Amino acid sequence: MADDAPTALDLPMVDPLPPATQKYFDICTEKLGMVPNVLRAYAFDIDKLNTFTAMYNDLMLGDSKLSKLEREMIAVVVSSVNRCFYCLTAHGAAVRELSGDPKLGELMVMNYRVADLDPKTRAMLDFAVKLTEAPERILEDDRQALRDAGFDDRDIWDIASVAGFFNMTNRVAAASDMRPNDAYHAQSR
Amino acid sequence: MADDAPTALDLPMVDPLPPATQKYFDICTEKLGMVPNVLRAYAFDIDKLNTFTAMYNDLMLGDSKLSKLEREMIAVVVSSVNRCFYCLTAHGAAVRELSGDPKLGELMVMNYRVADLDPKTRAMLDFAVKLTEAPERILEDDRQALRDAGFDDRDIWDIASVAGFFNMTNRVAAASDMRPNDAYHAQSR
Amino acid sequence: MADDAPTALDLPMVDPLPPATQKYFDICTEKLGMVPNVLRAYAFDIDKLNTFTAMYNDLMLGDSKLSKLEREMIAVVVSSVNRCFYCLTAHGAAVRELSGDPKLGELMVMNYRVADLDPKTRAMLDFAVKLTEAPERILEDDRQALRDAGFDDRDIWDIASVAGFFNMTNRVAAASDMRPNDAYHAQSR
Amino acid sequence: MADDAPTALDLPMVDPLPPATQKYFDICTEKLGMVPNVLRAYAFDIDKLNTFTAMYNDLMLGDSKLSKLEREMIAVVVSSVNRCFYCLTAHGAAVRELSGDPKLGELMVMNYRVADLDPKTRAMLDFAVKLTEAPERILEDDRQALRDAGFDDRDIWDIASVAGFFNMTNRVAAASDMRPNDAYHAQSR
Amino acid sequence: MADDAPTALDLPMVDPLPPATQKYFDICTEKLGMVPNVLRAYAFDIDKLNTFTAMYNDLMLGDSKLSKLEREMIAVVVSSVNRCFYCLTAHGAAVRELSGDPKLGELMVMNYRVADLDPKTRAMLDFAVKLTEAPERILEDDRQALRDAGFDDRDIWDIASVAGFFNMTNRVAAASDMRPNDAYHAQSR
Amino acid sequence: MADDAPTALDLPMVDPLPPATQKYFDICTEKLGMVPNVLRAYAFDIDKLNTFTAMYNDLMLGDSKLSKLEREMIAVVVSSVNRCFYCLTAHGAAVRELSGDPKLGELMVMNYRVADLDPKTRAMLDFAVKLTEAPERILEDDRQALRDAGFDDRDIWDIASVAGFFNMTNRVAAASDMRPNDAYHAQSR
Repeated sequence: MADDAPTALDLPMVDPLPPATQKYFDICTEKLGMVPNVLRAYAFDIDKLNTFTAMYNDLMLGDSKLSKLEREMIAVVVSSVNRCFYCLTAHGAAVRELSGDPKLGELMVMNYRVADLDPKTRAMLDFAVKLTEAPERILEDDRQALRDAGFDDRDIWDIASVAGFFNMTNRVAAASDMRPNDAYHAQSR
Repeated sequence: MADDAPTALDLPMVDPLPPATQKYFDICTEKLGMVPNVLRAYAFDIDKLNTFTAMYNDLMLGDSKLSKLEREMIAVVVSSVNRCFYCLTAHGAAVRELSGDPKLGELMVMNYRVADLDPKTRAMLDFAVKLTEAPERILEDDRQALRDAGFDDRDIWDIASVAGFFNMTNRVAAASDMRPNDAYHAQSR
Repeated sequence: MADDAPTALDLPMVDPLPPATQKYFDICTEKLGMVPNVLRAYAFDIDKLNTFTAMYNDLMLGDSKLSKLEREMIAVVVSSVNRCFYCLTAHGAAVRELSGDPKLGELMVMNYRVADLDPKTRAMLDFAVKLTEAPERILEDDRQALRDAGFDDRDIWDIASVAGFFNMTNRVAAASDMRPNDAYHAQSR
Repeated sequence: MADDAPTALDLPMVDPLPPATQKYFDICTEKLGMVPNVLRAYAFDIDKLNTFTAMYNDLMLGDSKLSKLEREMIAVVVSSVNRCFYCLTAHGAAVRELSGDPKLGELMVMNYRVADLDPKTRAMLDFAVKLTEAPERILEDDRQALRDAGFDDRDIWDIASVAGFFNMTNRVAAASDMRPNDAYHAQSR
Repeated sequence: MADDAPTALDLPMVDPLPPATQKYFDICTEKLGMVPNVLRAYAFDIDKLNTFTAMYNDLMLGDSKLSKLEREMIAVVVSSVNRCFYCLTAHGAAVRELSGDPKLGELMVMNYRVADLDPKTRAMLDFAVKLTEAPERILEDDRQALRDAGFDDRDIWDIASVAGFFNMTNRVAAASDMRPNDAYHAQSR
Repeated sequence: MADDAPTALDLPMVDPLPPATQKYFDICTEKLGMVPNVLRAYAFDIDKLNTFTAMYNDLMLGDSKLSKLEREMIAVVVSSVNRCFYCLTAHGAAVRELSGDPKLGELMVMNYRVADLDPKTRAMLDFAVKLTEAPERILEDDRQALRDAGFDDRDIWDIASVAGFFNMTNRVAAASDMRPNDAYHAQSR
């Protein structure tokens, strides 16, 4: 692929970008120092970009009793099951940054099971991983385990939605060979 | 759960629904004879409902060189891997209806591999299933197999996006024990 | 294969059929409206047909404390693990008919785990599925779980025998690409 | 279980045995030096014993272009996948005896893939093992591979039937904790 | 490979062997009636042979509260998971010899789960097998299960080291198609 | 475990260490800035430490046509299959350092399949991963694929030995909950 292309698919960005998109990308550059490649990948079709970012922002940044770190931890453990290079890189960096604990980011990437986690966080990640590996085996006992750990039904919905979302994006990234921006690798080490 | 609840989670619909949502649900009732339970499930939070329907409508009903039947076939084979009762029921009915071939719907649910498919359709479904079962093993050879079968890079994106989307919704449905409307079972038999 | 052939193997029926076989097939046509293709498939060798039907009739129709519906449910969940198009179609129809509950048939085909089952039936199907997926891991605890659910040792034998039988026929059907009669698809919907 | 019981299930043999069964068991003792425990296990119900032995004798001893050694090799590689102690012991002994090659018996039990086999035998065992491990993935290419190796469609049926049969008996043995007669272990070493 | 070669790799033994190695091999011949092929395989490089035998002797013959039979049982169940023809043959013979119970050796090769074992031995083998099949899932609960069964932390180290060692040698044997000496097959039957 | 303990097992280092061991540890501190925890873990028994370091040094630092980077890449991809936190951390750092390419280290940890590798390196890693995941399926074709990629039989032995070694150490680390020194995480980023 072209050195700078965000994926292996020949799907160039709309050129020029519509003003609202350009403005969004400028804000990314200003705040993050880059436009994440996932946004560049979707920008061949502005409607698709917008539906993707609307869902992403609702799930990862919107109102929820799950903290942003908790949502990023779910993102990484799901991506670890699916071995998604893009999402492990981008969201592994987010875990390192939000937690201030580089080792925690590595543990989520490598094997969350051996991390030293409080029981509530472990229950959350166990559910996200089982939902990823064997969704057909999720039953009422699994929901009850989350309730017993202190989550309510809205939290369960949010855990499931974030885990589900990364099961989607992991596969879009895998199918298109999506490449993370190089800048992530050294962040918050 | 309550006999009429769309999931096992205690997340009642916003009441009353905002006028735009109520109108959308009325249209569903008029056209489909029901409000699909997935919409009722998301209606505890209208923003979530809207981001979900925007993505669903873009992927399943929006502009694409994939026919609606092809997209529904992807939906069902992905849901078959994940054994999602909700999606197999609702989208199995869609395959039966769009194809006019009840047996085709059953084959997608039970084992698409033994269906009598043209090579292009088989390549599409093989990719969707591998992407579901082993996303970490999707490589350039897999993309090239789709191109060799007659798909272009935009088609590959669309195949991946539909397959990815159902990997998400299968898991939201599994996590919440989402129940399909009974009406689907007898449709287009 | 020929449009009418029951399998992909070139193994034509004995022609003419011996009188006893012809009579048996005539009874099938009269009672079921068809000769099930599995019988046509075996009819290239009357001894094989007879040993197959003797075992089938003993297990599925013979004396047992398991009801015919219970035996058909085992048949379908085993065939669901093995994704056998023939057996899911023919025995899924049987579950719908014997139970008068089309949704129950669909649940057995798609994912029996999310069906609303009494604990005894669930224990029976859990055993049949574990025996199918991981026979090397069936131990005394698994047998005791059946006894605790209300089954006696003869029932355990019968559950195992039906589950075992469909592990055989699923594979004969898969190996020969056995095709179910079209009539099953619309039955008892 | 009782020291002498053939399984962990409390299903004593009919007592006295009907004369025809007693005669059959006497012949076993005379020819084999024992009554194989599988026959003793089924003898709680003479009809079940008879349907089992009729199918066994047809498949393993009846007319087929597969040699008895080939059928026993299929029996053992299937039982190796399923890790069935009873069948590996009894049919491993049969491979040793029929081949006069104790090492061949061990290879079939341990890992048939590393045995030094002619291509036709390897194709046969590869088919039997794939049919055991992933019956849903057996397609026309797999049947054609057998034809290319020199088998005809009747042979394919016979390979599938023997492989299917041991997928049944492996599970009946596992479910009941069936124990092989001790005499097998030292035979033909 | 040459009839007498210990592996499929063209790596001839150092010739002549250094005196210390020759003496070691002479002792093997005297005590065992053969030079085990694993030693002949490593003898293309005397340093590699020496590091291998040092570790082997420490683990399998050195000081430990695990008996030699217990270590050999671990060796065989690990090799059974990995289906290693070399190690199953050589160490299966060792279990038969050390236990004086040929059936025990067969059970370890075929399916240790159905053997009649005391709870401590079963806990040891369950740990070794889980460590082989799913090392990423070994957690404190697994270590505690060993402690509850009567093992101390040094024993846990020894169990893990033997299980780990055979996970290594199974793979060296598989990669090189290492062949056990024929003499093992008939030993201690 | 104690904050400073290298594993979850209560196996304190020999105290004082023998002079040769102390010297070795001092050299580690001088050259690496730390004593790797794996050495501290083994130091409860100096013989075990010595046999481990002898094998490690022979394989990872000794004479071989495989470069040190190649051996470390094998170490990481094997550890990625087994999700070993210790080895991924320590040897991931080694890949980053030896290659001067932090992204390469991340790719080996996360999913080597999507790395941009020359065909020879890919063949080497594909062999190591298959040997790890399914040693029973390694056959002559797999060895020939390495030869076709440019490796000779001695190289195959070395690839197998390194892959085998990490299949051992991954399991010793998992069984003991071995913890990598914190210093690795930030190295060569």
